[in-house]
Amino acid sequence: MSINKTITIGCYLFSQLRKIGVRHVIGLPGDYNLQLIEQINQTSELSFVGTCNELNAAYAADGYARLNGISSLLTTYGVGDLSAINGVAGAYAEHVSMVCITGSPPSHVNANHLSTHHSTADGNFSNVLNCFKEFTVAQTCLTYINAVEEIDRVLRACIRERRPVYIQIPSDIAYLQVTIPQAAIARSICPDSSEPRMLQDVVARLLPRLGAAVKPAFLLDIDVERYQLKADIQYLAEVLNIPMIALSTAKCVVDESHPRFYGTYSGAASTRQVRERVEESDCLIAFSPRFIDINSALYSCKLPDDTIYVNPQNVLWQGQAFPGLRSRDLLNCIIETLGIQYVPQFPRPSQSQNTALVLAMAEKKITHHYFWQRMSHFFQQDDVVVAECGTSHIALSSIPMPENVCFLCQPVWGAIGYTLPALLGSLLSNASRRHILFIGDGAFQLTVQELSTILLYDFNPIIFLINNKGYTIERHILGSGAEYNEVADWSYTELAGCFNKKHTAFTTIVNNEVELEYALKACEKQRRLSFIQINFDPLDCPQSLKSFGKMIANFDYGPYGPQ
Amino acid sequence: MSINKTITIGCYLFSQLRKIGVRHVIGLPGDYNLQLIEQINQTSELSFVGTCNELNAAYAADGYARLNGISSLLTTYGVGDLSAINGVAGAYAEHVSMVCITGSPPSHVNANHLSTHHSTADGNFSNVLNCFKEFTVAQTCLTYINAVEEIDRVLRACIRERRPVYIQIPSDIAYLQVTIPQAAIARSICPDSSEPRMLQDVVARLLPRLGAAVKPAFLLDIDVERYQLKADIQYLAEVLNIPMIALSTAKCVVDESHPRFYGTYSGAASTRQVRERVEESDCLIAFSPRFIDINSALYSCKLPDDTIYVNPQNVLWQGQAFPGLRSRDLLNCIIETLGIQYVPQFPRPSQSQNTALVLAMAEKKITHHYFWQRMSHFFQQDDVVVAECGTSHIALSSIPMPENVCFLCQPVWGAIGYTLPALLGSLLSNASRRHILFIGDGAFQLTVQELSTILLYDFNPIIFLINNKGYTIERHILGSGAEYNEVADWSYTELAGCFNKKHTAFTTIVNNEVELEYALKACEKQRRLSFIQINFDPLDCPQSLKSFGKMIANFDYGPYGPQ
Ligand SMILES: Cc1ncc(C[n+]2csc(CCOP(=O)(O)OP(=O)(O)O)c2C)c(N)n1
Ligand SMILES: Cc1ncc(C[n+]2csc(CCOP(=O)(O)OP(=O)(O)O)c2C)c(N)n1
Repeated sequence: MSINKTITIGCYLFSQLRKIGVRHVIGLPGDYNLQLIEQINQTSELSFVGTCNELNAAYAADGYARLNGISSLLTTYGVGDLSAINGVAGAYAEHVSMVCITGSPPSHVNANHLSTHHSTADGNFSNVLNCFKEFTVAQTCLTYINAVEEIDRVLRACIRERRPVYIQIPSDIAYLQVTIPQAAIARSICPDSSEPRMLQDVVARLLPRLGAAVKPAFLLDIDVERYQLKADIQYLAEVLNIPMIALSTAKCVVDESHPRFYGTYSGAASTRQVRERVEESDCLIAFSPRFIDINSALYSCKLPDDTIYVNPQNVLWQGQAFPGLRSRDLLNCIIETLGIQYVPQFPRPSQSQNTALVLAMAEKKITHHYFWQRMSHFFQQDDVVVAECGTSHIALSSIPMPENVCFLCQPVWGAIGYTLPALLGSLLSNASRRHILFIGDGAFQLTVQELSTILLYDFNPIIFLINNKGYTIERHILGSGAEYNEVADWSYTELAGCFNKKHTAFTTIVNNEVELEYALKACEKQRRLSFIQINFDPLDCPQSLKSFGKMIANFDYGPYGPQ
Repeated sequence: MSINKTITIGCYLFSQLRKIGVRHVIGLPGDYNLQLIEQINQTSELSFVGTCNELNAAYAADGYARLNGISSLLTTYGVGDLSAINGVAGAYAEHVSMVCITGSPPSHVNANHLSTHHSTADGNFSNVLNCFKEFTVAQTCLTYINAVEEIDRVLRACIRERRPVYIQIPSDIAYLQVTIPQAAIARSICPDSSEPRMLQDVVARLLPRLGAAVKPAFLLDIDVERYQLKADIQYLAEVLNIPMIALSTAKCVVDESHPRFYGTYSGAASTRQVRERVEESDCLIAFSPRFIDINSALYSCKLPDDTIYVNPQNVLWQGQAFPGLRSRDLLNCIIETLGIQYVPQFPRPSQSQNTALVLAMAEKKITHHYFWQRMSHFFQQDDVVVAECGTSHIALSSIPMPENVCFLCQPVWGAIGYTLPALLGSLLSNASRRHILFIGDGAFQLTVQELSTILLYDFNPIIFLINNKGYTIERHILGSGAEYNEVADWSYTELAGCFNKKHTAFTTIVNNEVELEYALKACEKQRRLSFIQINFDPLDCPQSLKSFGKMIANFDYGPYGPQ
């Protein structure tokens, strides 16, 4: 039965968004988009969430999408879009689905070659769009005529490509009514399946290869998470006894507590065991690995020549491409073809950690060495662990996480300040999971105001502020004692009170090991936000940062650099 | 005598910057630019100023350039640039000279087709540059071979066009030595003069026209300030008895206390007197006016057909273009040709105001009506008045300012949050002038952290926080009671203490007229930052905002909008 339905363009957009899983649209109002906010709030089970600024909104949308699968950002033309674009570029680099919507000047402006506020006042209304073309996989300027078709096209691309898309909607067309066929987008955006012959063919070639292999291995990068391959990969690893090895950019895309989890591969910086398993594997199946400087120990990764690369939309093998293959279909087809009855082979992994807990005995000044080993015993199954760039991310990278932990970070794009708003977004998506953020004082200062929104929504994350009075990761690259690596010495624990008079956060300052124990005990009991400031020496850092700093300095500045 | 000199590429760039008037480079460190910060600090009389984030750095650089003529921004590749681009676009829209420098990945990365952190990890290193192409007048990626030539080319364009330029410098070439001819850039960037015949010709046609005119007038927009035409225009206005009329986007580009200052022209929204003088002028000389929605009462400006448009690089008159004419040369040539001996005709204008001061008599709740008439008596000669978008800018637009006031705002681009960092930049440029900022609570939340840097440098501006618990200007467009127009209710006056433990700011909260008097008295005595929070009713606003709100709503949403 197909009944046509009349709906305004704005409401159509938002009802489609709702159908593909978006429950909150994050952004800021502006005169060109106020009418859209009205329409969002008219859409059932969809609501608008205002943040303090647009960059923070984009980061929040990114964090939201990492848990929820997809998110939506709403800005006003020019000033809003361009304030947010760094967050959109981050989502693009990290394969995150984000529908960026902007309320743009009314259609009569362009038609009459006029200029408006929030433009460059030279009649050019394509410059903003041109910027977004660089960091989105589909863009559109809606008109009355194209709206329904374009909305569907762009939303489909967002889901298919796991990347941001960009929609401009002139302020005077949002309330115009269009007629749409009843066929729901939820059906039409259902990702197309793989080419059937190609699928059978590749699986037929792959299985004997896998069967004959003596040292098979799976190598994982972030697309495993983005295309939700975790369950299938863990299943195959379990039943076929294949070790799973992750790049450092793919922490927790499979459970690190899984018996088949074998470690992290980062070229020359890997353990010998992991390195051999990858580089000498006779059947390495690599899930779209992307090697950049920091996950490859400066491009020292050497995969076997006949590695089988399983990408979201094709398989590459021995120089040959097999297009038309979705990674998920491939895994399903292997599982079906094998026809194995699933009997869980392993008991659910216990909470046992690799290292024994060393507990505080004295009022010893806190050090990174102590802190991170202590924290490694703090994490629990299902936690969302949010790791800001800097010492936090570096330290957390080498702590094994319990089952089903979501590790939220931005390792490729690496914009500092990302995590605090991303935490907001992640909480909006699922506040029932325990959220723990580790963030440096430097990074915290970039986007501090979003603490206000986290408090406004009464969320209860645990925030560890790693306070070393500056950019310690940079200090280990260049300028260890330089003023430019210092940041202002704020009274961090007082900020929560400034930003919210009602939601009294639990805040404390930790200088030594005993205070840390007290703080950890205390925050486990809270039903409110916990903010724990930990004071470190400015140059103290995880051991691995020291060699990392030197390596990066050599890489960046070369033999004639400033060192 | 031309002796060649050997210098590193980075130091060459910074010494040239210093020569063209830059004394502070504003930005944030990152691994790709740390070496440049070392070189900045090695350049005499040049120093690096760190801000809390890159958007704020761009706004600060914009504010700096408005007083100083030119500024420089330093970011790290990708994450830094793109965080700042909205501020760069603002400078582009508002004709501000800003040299944007970014430390980019080392040259061997591109040469080897590698990917790095802060990139999209697909080998694409032109996407960031492509964005900057949209909002800068010249761009370059430095190499060892092109560096000297390109640096000079791009800096020249920045000065000539009064717009931003963009320089990428790979991190491994900053310390390479190049040989440069002794010819100083200070000479070579000296703007070329006008085409001599054209200049004489146009002046010869213009003067009789001006002589015969019964109702001549000057119409001014922002380029008058950017090309420093104020003195010449005021001189001509004085000796030739020509009224000066400004667009609202050009507030204070000439002295509003000048006897020849005639008012603000905004089409149908002007006074009858001003409107007639402009639209019925028989010799209107218009200095590159740019009509957008908000300075023209929705495009209701109607200049006479034979208006003489004096633009920075040409004259347009009766459909004909006279290229090769710099506006400044034209004015000088007129003055010279007239050969008038300058005898100041007017005594220096007194501080007398248009309206009589109405003083607080009772503890009456503060209203916009009272507040702005009171403030109109607060301003002094040479003040820098910083007006944030929103009720502040709208209210201040109609207050006449004393002589030589610099009115800092962003009327065309109109990004909220701009002014607090712009205030920092303006103070860096000239802290000896009294600075007064008016900013709404909504706008303040976007870039609040830069209060920290203002305190760090011990600057003493007066900040009025217009607190109405939300986006009041938007409330008068749509959603007057809507939650989406509310912002979190911060304890604003406590923030200064959080951000700085040493510089104790003077802070106070004003609810009524008597408290305002106390606050104004108190802050005049301070040698420290004054932060005055004024609590207004959420819907209270300057009268003009009410009609403005309705007008914009009609313009934006059209007849089928949400109203
Ligand atoms: C938006 C952005 N600006 C600048 C950088 C460069 N950068 C990378 S890490 C870092 C310092 C982080 O300092 P902090 O958050 O205090 O962490 P720490 O290493 O001191 O623990 C900077 C400035 C960046 N990655 N992103
Ligand atoms: C970066 C940016 N985002 C959004 C807007 C849209 N906008 C214009 S004015 C305004 C509200 C300003 O509120 P506030 O600063 O509190 O001033 P008020 O009018 O309440 O005095 C908003 C959200 C904008 N101009 N710039």
